[in-house]
Formats: sequence, C-alpha cells, structure tokens
Amino acid sequence: MGAPACYESLLEATREAHLIGATSAVLSWDQETMMPPGGVELRSRQLAQLARLQHELSTAERVGELLSQCEADANLAADPASPTTAALRELRRDYSRATKLPASLVEELAKVTSIAQHEWAEARKASDFSRFEPHLKRIVELNRQTAACFGWPKSGEVWDALAEGYEPGCTAAQVEAVFTPLRAQLQAILDRILGATQRPSNRFNELPLNTDTQQRFVRMVAERIGFDFNRGRLDTSTHPFCGGSHCRDVRLTTRFSPNCLLDGLGSTMHEAGHGMYEQGLPFDQCGTPLGEAVSLGIHESQSRLWENQVGRSRAFWKWGTPQLAQFFGAAVAGFPAEEIYGAANIVEPGYIRVDADEATYNMHIMVRFQLERRLISGDLDPADLPEAWNELYRVYLHLEVPDDRRGCLQDVHWSMGAFGYFPTYTLGTLTAAQMYEAACRDIPGLEAGFGEGQFAPLREWLNARVHSLGRQLRPDALCRSVTGASLSAEPFLRHLRSKLFPLYGLS
Amino acid sequence: MGAPACYESLLEATREAHLIGATSAVLSWDQETMMPPGGVELRSRQLAQLARLQHELSTAERVGELLSQCEADANLAADPASPTTAALRELRRDYSRATKLPASLVEELAKVTSIAQHEWAEARKASDFSRFEPHLKRIVELNRQTAACFGWPKSGEVWDALAEGYEPGCTAAQVEAVFTPLRAQLQAILDRILGATQRPSNRFNELPLNTDTQQRFVRMVAERIGFDFNRGRLDTSTHPFCGGSHCRDVRLTTRFSPNCLLDGLGSTMHEAGHGMYEQGLPFDQCGTPLGEAVSLGIHESQSRLWENQVGRSRAFWKWGTPQLAQFFGAAVAGFPAEEIYGAANIVEPGYIRVDADEATYNMHIMVRFQLERRLISGDLDPADLPEAWNELYRVYLHLEVPDDRRGCLQDVHWSMGAFGYFPTYTLGTLTAAQMYEAACRDIPGLEAGFGEGQFAPLREWLNARVHSLGRQLRPDALCRSVTGASLSAEPFLRHLRSKLFPLYGLS
Repeated sequence: MGAPACYESLLEATREAHLIGATSAVLSWDQETMMPPGGVELRSRQLAQLARLQHELSTAERVGELLSQCEADANLAADPASPTTAALRELRRDYSRATKLPASLVEELAKVTSIAQHEWAEARKASDFSRFEPHLKRIVELNRQTAACFGWPKSGEVWDALAEGYEPGCTAAQVEAVFTPLRAQLQAILDRILGATQRPSNRFNELPLNTDTQQRFVRMVAERIGFDFNRGRLDTSTHPFCGGSHCRDVRLTTRFSPNCLLDGLGSTMHEAGHGMYEQGLPFDQCGTPLGEAVSLGIHESQSRLWENQVGRSRAFWKWGTPQLAQFFGAAVAGFPAEEIYGAANIVEPGYIRVDADEATYNMHIMVRFQLERRLISGDLDPADLPEAWNELYRVYLHLEVPDDRRGCLQDVHWSMGAFGYFPTYTLGTLTAAQMYEAACRDIPGLEAGFGEGQFAPLREWLNARVHSLGRQLRPDALCRSVTGASLSAEPFLRHLRSKLFPLYGLS
Repeated sequence: MGAPACYESLLEATREAHLIGATSAVLSWDQETMMPPGGVELRSRQLAQLARLQHELSTAERVGELLSQCEADANLAADPASPTTAALRELRRDYSRATKLPASLVEELAKVTSIAQHEWAEARKASDFSRFEPHLKRIVELNRQTAACFGWPKSGEVWDALAEGYEPGCTAAQVEAVFTPLRAQLQAILDRILGATQRPSNRFNELPLNTDTQQRFVRMVAERIGFDFNRGRLDTSTHPFCGGSHCRDVRLTTRFSPNCLLDGLGSTMHEAGHGMYEQGLPFDQCGTPLGEAVSLGIHESQSRLWENQVGRSRAFWKWGTPQLAQFFGAAVAGFPAEEIYGAANIVEPGYIRVDADEATYNMHIMVRFQLERRLISGDLDPADLPEAWNELYRVYLHLEVPDDRRGCLQDVHWSMGAFGYFPTYTLGTLTAAQMYEAACRDIPGLEAGFGEGQFAPLREWLNARVHSLGRQLRPDALCRSVTGASLSAEPFLRHLRSKLFPLYGLS
C-alpha cells in the first residue's frame, strides 16, 4: 500500500522548496571558495531572491492544507514510532516556524548577511571592528525582529526563539545549567594541567611541511575514514566549513598552516565528520525531514568525534605515523607515533577558538554564549562588543586579547546572522564523547582497528544509529537511543582526564 | 528628468528574471568545473526548477502590461536612436519569444539537457554514440517542439526559429548564401597551401612544457590583454568555455596539452575575448538588454579576434617570445619569435573543430550546420548521425573519421540543446576580421603596440564600439556602425591569404 496522495503531494511541495535551498547552498559555498571579489554585490541579491522564493514555497497555503489533511489521516498519524509520523511532526514544526516570518524579513536578512560576511572578512583582515560594527548592529536588529516573530514561552527569553532554529528544544536557561558546572570542572582540569611539570613536546607543531603534500595527506585521511569523493569535494577557504547541497554533493573546506600539519588535519577530519553525516543521509528522502540532519548539536557531535575521539587518539597515530612517512619522507623521520600523539593533545589557552585544544575549547564557547545572549536581549550594544569580549577572555582564559582580529572578529557566525548557534559546539562535544563511549562498548576491538587504519566499523555504527535516520528522533531522544542515557558532561570529562592526565604526568 | 515609473518597474521585473538566470549560470559553471559526479541528478532538477522560475517571471502578464504602457509613452519611444527605445525594442522581442513557450517545455528541456550533458561526456570518453543517442533523440524532439512554438516565416524553415535565439535575424538560407561561396574560396586557399613545398616548422607544437607553468603563463597573458581577475576566474575543464553570471563575475575555463602550449594559450585568449566582452558590459544595466551581449556571432567575433588576429600575429610573438623565456627558461631556448609565429599558423586538416587552424576551421562549422539543419527538419534520424557526419568529413576535409569520439561526439552543443548555434562561429570569424581591419585603420601603430605588450588600445576601442553598448544595435547594424560596411567574407579571406601565403612560400 502506497502513501496517501496528500502525503505524496506534501513531500513534493517540500522537496520543491528544499531544492531552492540546495541552490542557495551552492551559491554560498561558491562565495566562500570560488567567487571573484567583484561578484559580491550581485551575489547578495541572488541569495536574497532565493531566500524569498524558498520562503514563499515553504509557507504556501497549500502546504498548510496538505499538512492538515495528512495529520487527519489515521493511516499516517496512527503509529507514533513510524518514520512517516516523525516526518509529519517535523514538517508541521518547519511550517509553523516559517509561516511566522514575513517574506520581507527573510529576504532582508539574506541580503544583509551576504554583504556582512564580505565586510566581516575585510574587517577581520584589517582588525578593524568599526568596519563591521554597522553590519552587526543591523543583523542584531533583524534577529531581534525574527525572534519576536517566532515568540518564546514566558519562562524563557528572546535568545531561545533563535536557538530553537539550530537546536530544537534548546533554551538559554538549559545551556546555562550545563555550562556553569562544566566551567568549574574544566577549570579544575586546566589548573592541574597548567600546573604540571611534565608536558608533551611541541616539536611536531613547529615542523615546516610542504603544503601541497599536506593537502594530499589530509585528502587521503578524509577518504580513509570514509568521506566519499565521488559525492563530495575538499577545497581551501579562510574559515573551514562543510557545505554543499545534498548527500551526493557535500563540500568540505579546510586550511593549512605551513608549520603545523595538525591544524589542517584537524580541520579536515572535523569537516569530514560533518560531511560523512551529510553523505549518510538517505538520498531517496532528500528534501524531506527524513533526509535532513537532526540539529547542529548532533551534527557537531559527528565532527568532534572524528576530530578528537579518533584523530587525537593514540590508536590513530599508530596507523597515521607510518602514513606520514610515506607522504613526507625524511622531513618527519625522528617523530615517533607517541610524540605526535602528544603534540596533538597539548593544552594551551589561546585567543582563537578554532585553534583551541579540547580542554579550553568550551571556554571559548561560553564567552560567545554570554555575549550573544546579551546582544540579542539588548543588554549589550554592538558598539561595546570588543570591550565585553576582551573582559570575558580575561575572566575565562586569563588572556589579554591583543586585537579584534584575534578577538571578537575571529568568527564568521554573527556576520552570517547566526545567533543561538554557538552553544551547539559544546553540546556536540559532550554528545561526541557520550556516543564514543557507547561505540567502544558496542564494537569489540574498535581502537585496535584504528591502529590498522580500519575506520569503517565506527562509520557504519554511526550511520546505522544517527546518519540514516534523518530527523526521525529529536536530539534528546536520539542521544538516549544511541547511548542509552540523556546527555551528560561526564563522558567528556572522563575522556579529557583519561587522555590528558597521563600525557601531563598526572594521576 | 527620470524615466517614467512604468519603465522603472519594467526594468525591475526584467532584472528579477535575469537574476534567476545568473544563478543558473553559476550552477552550470559549477557543474562543468567543480561538482562531484554524484551531484548530477539533483543538479538537473535544480536547473530545471530555475528555468521554470525564470520563465514564469519573464512571461508574467504584468511584464506585458508594463511593456505596452512603455511603448505607448511618447517620451520613451520618441527617439529611435535612444538607448531606451532600443531597450524597449529588445524587451518586446524577448517577451514575445518567451511567451510563446509553455513553462513545461522550458523545464523539460533544462532537465533533459542537464542529464544529457553528463551522458554526452561519458559517451564521448567511451566513444560510444549509442549511449548518447536516446538523449540526442529526445533533445531534437524538444527542439522541434520549441521551434513549432516560435514559428517561422513561410519563406523560411524550422531551423530558423531556433537560430533566431542565438543570432537575431539569422536564417538557414542566409547562412547557406554565405557558406557556399566561402567554402569554394577556402578550398582554393587550402589547395594552394596543402600543395606548397615550403611550410612552417612544427617543432614548437611538439615541445613538452610543464603544465603548471603553462597555467601561470596563460593567466599572465589573459591579464595582460585585459581580462580582469578581480571580476573573473580562470579554471580548467574538458571543454573550454566562458561562463559566469554577470560583468563582475566572469568565469573562463581552458585546458592544457602537455606537448603544445599553443593549445592552452589559444583557448585562453579565445575565452578571454569572450570574457572581456562580458566584463565590458555596463554593470548599472545588468539584467537589462543594455547590459547584455548582442548575439553569439558578435560574441564570437570578440573571442576570435583576440585568439587569431592578435594571438596568432607576428607582433604578438615579438612580445610573447621573451615572455615565454621568463616562464620556461631553457626549455624554450632556441625558438625564435618567427618560428613560434609559424608554428601558431600551421594549416592541417584534422578531425577536431576546436583544434582546427584558421583555414580549415570553418569547414567544421559547415558540416555541423548541414547536419543540424537536417536533424531539426526531420530529414536526418539521430541514429544515422555518425554515418552522415563521417560522410561529410570525407567531402569537406577529405578525412576518414576514426571513431565517434573524434567524430560526432566531439562537441557539447547539441547535448546542451543548442541547435542553430554553430554558424555563429563562422559569422563571428568573419566579423572579427572585418572589425580588426577597421581597428587597424583607426588606431595608429596598433600592431607595433602588440610588439611592446600594449593591448589596451584595442580593448578600449572594442569596448567603446561594441562592449559598452549592450544590445543597442542588432548584429548587422553594429557591424556597419563599427566597420562602416555590412558583413562580408572578404576581410577574412584577405587575412588568411596575407598571413598564410608568405608562411608557405606562396605569393
């Protein structure tokens, strides 16, 4: 028995709107990787037009009618555990959110952020916040308008309305409840590590290596861990990201440091983790909720897991060290696996989030969460951002930020209009550790396999439990389904302690 | 005094439709240069959707109403020589053509050709016409339907309806009237050259040169002749083309032969000629007829002129030879300018159009014109194309085509759905020679300047007379305005004889 006609029509309409989004995604990727500088003005108009068209298609009255018909159909809504019921739940959620926004606001936001991203990049190059400030001001205004359209429960706050778009169910109060104790425990770990007398050698992170060879090496690793280049690409951009338009066209970017292979490798494994999630979504569900990722937090769990639990593990470097020798020859002679493993796990508070180690990374996120919460509530004037940023870096990381390039201009997110996004990095980090503990329980000899270059068991395990499901489960339900428990910071803290303390001679 | 409100609204609607076309252009470029193989299926849906949306916007009733209002406005239509009057004339033409096509046909053609291009590329690789045949059959059918929608005058034929889309006013009868005598005169020139006892040395065309350095060299040349990389790119693709979405984002592709620098250089200068036309269109008119190229024939005149009149000239190589030495060092020592100039002008009948010399090139076009005319009229079954192709190569070029890869599968055009396109290559070739004679009359010391690497005078002359005008003049009027005469084959034949005969020791 096939699905009722109203359901088929609903999916068709959804796919049609999604197709416009897929086109926007290609244009956005192109803007970051390929577009000549002169293209920026018309590109912002293209993206604004597509945002408006997608919004029109997503919010068409007919979609609402079809949704109601489907919801009234006993065959479709009968089994709460069926994928179809889940798809209808998610379609209703998306429709309800989209119809709250006027098309003019959607278009304006797309236009403003396309230009702001370009201005942000220029401002960052020049370390000139004043160039970015008016754009940030406008983006904050538009985001506050957006939040007002969505609304939020009385018990919540304006930031929640935006966060919901990235992480269903996420609120500032919840995030704070996770972050406050996590910060204390991280600080305790950091205090011990920074006070240790033993530390891993940094030599490997100061080794100049040809960037063309680095490029070939990280591509080999991405392919080996399971990223499919028949359905994807890897390019270079200022800010690494995973883009592309659907599971058969996934586009990673990375960047290289001439003196630090691990920078480019870490970015690549991180983005490949995102990419394997995208590639693992079912193509026959493309353009429907069953062909989409659950949330940014879950997405980030996949990237973190490959970057940190795999890429910074002893087992990975048992396999990786002889591979390095094949690519770089004499240049890497004299670096045993154990030394590279140590170099990959040095803890050092720094200004730059994307360069941060696993122990300090979440401190950067906490700073951003505080600031964006205040920007969006109206407590913090965008003009005062640099000062507020620098003050929080003193408090959280005991650092004096030298300039805005290494301060509040370092991240692209706000210029893209993304507020409520940052905490998903930490949620993803915690989820990664918790899923990885479950994978170690489920898969005998998992880490021994890494040592032999065998990564397929982990990828397949994740594919079956996460990737292939699309949005069937919400983040909390998925976490319980995969790991048997709700999200907790304990697995992540265990991961840090058990890896870092021995490297720093601590017990 | 500003333009009337109806005119402003009309332009706004036109720009909106054009913007979708600009997005399609980025996606098409991406498909040929960047997209992973897995992307093809969804890409065809994206392009079909955009084609439908663009068609909807272009043919909206409101556009027709605004057009009629503008045409009735004495201030707008008063002066037949004003740009505004010309813009209205072209807008009416476009609207009238677009409204003749049903949206379903536009969408179907976009979808079929996006897949067909991929299948053609695979068929060509395997030299397997049977793989491409069903797609060609379907494309011919859809093109015949398209032609039937447009219609054609009683005195004309079905092919004319399609050619009008590429070259306003072009008919098969006119093309034949140019091609028949041209073929006879070309044959006479070829007979003399192929019978000559002296010929230039081919040594330079057999010289292996590093392709990375070739890439840097051709990029330098493109920039030197005037292609602006702030508003454009140069990449590599199987089939060189000039794409991109507007005058500030123009994207050239080229390809390289390890043993023949002149292949990659010729393609690059050719595409840069197209690119400089696009970059020379006025950005403030982007999306209106005054910001668009006149026709494919005029476009081709710009590419041919830079490729042949400039790039294969003695003066160019006076400048180019020492440049070569700077890039390739000892590898090019022992090649005087005169020898490279000779090598750039060797006449040799071959199978491949894009590799053809100036004397045989148009024979390839004549073959394609005959075949597409018959395919579209229904006289030639697509299944019989390889046989018919090979027969015409015997007649026109006295060659036995060895396989379909080097035969009827060599060109992308028909897989893109482009019928009526090929003759514009020859019209462009003739126009290039005629414009170049006019430039030599107008600009004192033009060729001496090439010898010093000065190309700006020619580019500026073309910009003022051709590029900056958009579609103000139709092809024939433009030719008269630039050269003082209607299009004739004589300048091209003079160009061939005066260059080639001395190189072959003929008088």
